[in-house]
Order: sequence, then C-alpha cells, then structure tokens
Amino acid sequence: MTKELLERLRVNDVRFASRLMSDVENNVQSKDMNDLLYAHSLKAVRIGITGPPGAGKSTLIDQLIDQFRKDGKTIGVVTVDPTSPFSGGSLLGDRIRMSQHTLDKGVFVRSMGSRGMIGGLARKSHLLGEVLACTGKDYILFETIGVGQAETEIIQNVDITIVVLVPEAGDEVQFMKAGPIEVADLFVVNKCDRDGAERVSELLSEYLQDGKEKGDNVPEIFLTSSTSGHGIEDLHEKALTLIERFKSSGELELRRERQYLKRVQGALRDELVAQFWNGQPELDMDAEITALRRAKKSPFTAAKYLVDSLNK
Amino acid sequence: MTKELLERLRVNDVRFASRLMSDVENNVQSKDMNDLLYAHSLKAVRIGITGPPGAGKSTLIDQLIDQFRKDGKTIGVVTVDPTSPFSGGSLLGDRIRMSQHTLDKGVFVRSMGSRGMIGGLARKSHLLGEVLACTGKDYILFETIGVGQAETEIIQNVDITIVVLVPEAGDEVQFMKAGPIEVADLFVVNKCDRDGAERVSELLSEYLQDGKEKGDNVPEIFLTSSTSGHGIEDLHEKALTLIERFKSSGELELRRERQYLKRVQGALRDELVAQFWNGQPELDMDAEITALRRAKKSPFTAAKYLVDSLNK
Repeated sequence: MTKELLERLRVNDVRFASRLMSDVENNVQSKDMNDLLYAHSLKAVRIGITGPPGAGKSTLIDQLIDQFRKDGKTIGVVTVDPTSPFSGGSLLGDRIRMSQHTLDKGVFVRSMGSRGMIGGLARKSHLLGEVLACTGKDYILFETIGVGQAETEIIQNVDITIVVLVPEAGDEVQFMKAGPIEVADLFVVNKCDRDGAERVSELLSEYLQDGKEKGDNVPEIFLTSSTSGHGIEDLHEKALTLIERFKSSGELELRRERQYLKRVQGALRDELVAQFWNGQPELDMDAEITALRRAKKSPFTAAKYLVDSLNK
Repeated sequence: MTKELLERLRVNDVRFASRLMSDVENNVQSKDMNDLLYAHSLKAVRIGITGPPGAGKSTLIDQLIDQFRKDGKTIGVVTVDPTSPFSGGSLLGDRIRMSQHTLDKGVFVRSMGSRGMIGGLARKSHLLGEVLACTGKDYILFETIGVGQAETEIIQNVDITIVVLVPEAGDEVQFMKAGPIEVADLFVVNKCDRDGAERVSELLSEYLQDGKEKGDNVPEIFLTSSTSGHGIEDLHEKALTLIERFKSSGELELRRERQYLKRVQGALRDELVAQFWNGQPELDMDAEITALRRAKKSPFTAAKYLVDSLNK
C-alpha cells in the first residue's frame, strides 16, 4: 500500500505530493509512511538559506534555481518565511510575485505558514523536505528568516547553510538580527549594488575572525545582486564544491548523524508526552492541576506529582 | 532550612539573591526551593517589554523605573536581550552604559545571556523573576527582543505586555520583526522625535483594526521619547490602570491560570524525558540509535522503538 504511494511520488505526481504535504502540515499523514519517506530522501542534498526579512532570499533562490536547472538538476523548496513572495507575499498580501519556475516540473516550491504553528514547524518542514526528496528532487532548499528556535531547528537539519545579509547590516546589532550566524557555511551580502556592501563584507570578515576558534575555517563571503545576477554563479559553484568536500571528508555524514540523533530525541519527547496523556483516562487532569495551583505548588512540583501519580 | 533562605531574600540580601540567581542559571539551585519561590512570588506584577534590538527598550525601562520609584514602588528587571546595555552592552562590548539605578536598593537588574542557552531560557527567566519577587519587588519587568520561541514563552508568562517599535517600523515587514504583536496589551512608538512616528502609529492602528476579531479591544498606542521623556508618564499611568482593570475583571487570574498550565506541561515534558534517560542504564542508547539509523528507520519509528523497549 505505502509502496504504491511512494511510487506515485517517484513519478512526480504533483497533485499527490501536494496532498501528502497538506496531510503532513495538518498532522494527519499515515505514520506508516515515515520510514519510507525517510529512507528514500537520503540522496537529496539539503541547503538552508536564512536571513532577515527583506534580505532578498527569495530572489536569490530564484536565481540559484536557474543555475541548478542549467546543470539539469531538480529542486524542491520549502519556505517557512512568512514574508516570502513564494508564500503568497507579505503580510498585507499586496506584493505577490510569481516565481518564474511555476511551470517547470523540475522545480517544486512549498510554503509553510509559520505564525501560529511554532510547535511542529521544524518537524513538519523536515517531513516536507523528505516528500520533495521522494519526488526525485536533487536539492532541497529551505528558506527561513534567521531567528527563532523553530527556524534554528530547521537550519540545523540541512547539509549546508547560506546566511544572507544586506549592505545595511553594517553593525553588530544587524548581524544579530541575521540570526544564528554561527551555523553559516557561506555568507552572502545581497543587493551589493547598494552602498555599504564592501564595508559590511569587511566588517563581517573581521567579526568572524574575532569569533573564530583556533583551527576553525572562516566561511567565505559572496557579494551578490539579485537584479544584475552578479555573484550568483560563483555562489552556486562554491556551494557545490563545499558539498563535495563535505561528502568526501565525512563532514556530511557527521552532520547527518548528529541531526538524526536530535530528531530522535525530539520524537522521543513527543512520544513520551503522548503516551503520558493517553495513559490516564481516570485522572481528571484539569481538576488535579487546579488543585495543585491552589496549593501554590510550583509547576515543577506539580509536574513531578502528576508523573508519579501515573507511575504508581 | 529553605525557609531561612527565603528570609534572606525577604530582607533583600542582594549578594545572596545574586548567588541564588546564578544557581538558577546554572541549573544547580535546590529543587526544594521551587515551591517556596513560586508561592511567595505571586504578589508581584510581571510586565513584559519586548521589541526589536535598537528600539530603545532599555532606556524606556530606565524611565519607567523612575516613574515607579516616584510612587515608592520597587522593581526587578530580568533582561534577556543580548544587545541590552543592562547586559553589559552590545555584542562588541563597546557600548556599556550604566543604569542610573545601580545604587538604588529598590531596583535590581539581572541580565541573562540568550545565545547558546535557548533550551531553558524561558524556564530560567520565570525562576529569576520569582527570586526577584521574593526579595519583595512590587513589579518585575522582563525585557526581551521580540522574536523566537523562548522569547515568546517568556512574554506569555507575564501579566501585561508592552511592545516597543520605532518610527522606521512603517511597514508590515517591520511590524513582523517586532515579534508577536498579538500579545501586546500596549504599544509604544519610541524615539518619537524622529520622522515617521505619527505615520507608524497610524499604520499600526489600521493594521490592528484589520486584524481584530469582533469584540476584541485594540491596544492603545503611545508615542514616547526616551531623550525628552515625552509620553513616559502617560504610559506608566496607563499600564497601572490596565493592571487594575485586569485584576478586577478576572483577566489577570485567567492569564495566570493558563500560564500555570503551560508551565506544568513544560515541566512534565522535562520530567518524563529525564525519567526516561535515567531509567535505562542497561540500554546502550548510542549503539541502539546508530543501528536504527543504519536500518534507515525514521526518527519517529526510532523514538517509538526506544520508548517501547523501556516499557517492556
């Protein structure tokens, strides 16, 4: 049964893939599929692209897609940036642009809302990436704004990460806004036709040198312009080189091992909590918690009491 | 024993409180204290102040403290903004300012690092707030940058929330950067002597009207200037009025009930996970997980397998 579903993904049945991804987002996908999705997604390379709203990530991705397509490579995109034009535009909804790749069967863009579903965002984005990988996509790009725990968890589950900044990012407060720059394998100063691009590149370079531990490699910085296309080819080429290097050095394997462990730990937590709540139909939890609160027990004591009640 | 410790907090033994807060940050505080800290912290009112780096939150807090002190009220501040001058300045460390309240025993400022300790940040900030409350502070202010899950969890555990914006925040992307504006009880457009303050106030007002559900109150917007002090008195007065209204309407009690439930759920998750890992000295988890990964089991299947192994 599920093998048949996998086959429908493999032949790139777009409507089926879309429906399955909706199921994932709504948390109703068949759990039996998880192993198949995971096992058949390992060939795809996952690239994280992160940076603050307005850094031009989506246009950059559009142009990277061009480069990949020239090589005959296929691309899936999972965007969790609520301001991304891929997601149907900005909050006010008045800036919808269409990706030029809409009609290309070798490209599949899937956007996730991030406001209001913080809980499962990272977990679901991983699954969406796996669905896309099962449709045979060679590269899966994850677009996120660079802040927040869920976004960080998404970016921690990719093979390489590109952090995108703008020329106005010329001080440390701005670097911070870019989010977890310590995860960057490559930096991009986008919109480099604007004033300050060289300066921010130099400042960033110094900043990275200051923060580097002995023996660390300092990530390369690329100046790009989404309008003129400047620097995109270089960036694409360097990303491919880096992926190959990570593959041959064992770094890729190491990263995936760590990521697997983290995902197991997360799933384990969810499983334990689910079993706990399912396990006590006889305990009136609301009443118990209300009573504990009235007794001015700290939340920690309350939790321990509830767990111990079940274990008895 | 712990009652004696509580007494030392009560008499405002600053060095003792500091040491206890360090213990909390390092996760080594005596768990026996949790109930006492919780039970004796309930009188204090907790105010969240959130907004992007550079919005002038710290200066605003400095001036709010002036207002509270004029009323004879005492104040604790927990700042989890890594760019806050309270935290010893910005990332590059070259902008250290001293709070004018350093020598005032009625004010206690405690800063937490947020980078690199995402895990327990919210939980620990709640505890720090409780320690401050136990030293007899009337109001506990929580300063956070407005983004991220941990920051959101901090702000979800206060009695009222003030969101701080700047005049440059005049579009929806900028509103988004301010973080979870749906939690705001009051808005501040700070640095209102700059161009655009009126405009951003109007845009925000429209934005809030658009997003409002039937029957919702739209939060008030205050223009303030940390340099001239403009608007600070009004803001302080309004915050007090709102707190009183929440107290008499039952809204405060309702919020605290929800917050207690959330904290219990979080502590329960931690407790279950801790018991799980403690419970299986005989299972070589690393080897098990490696084997599961080799077998290409999804993280979910792996987690379920491990939990079931223990339950057998």
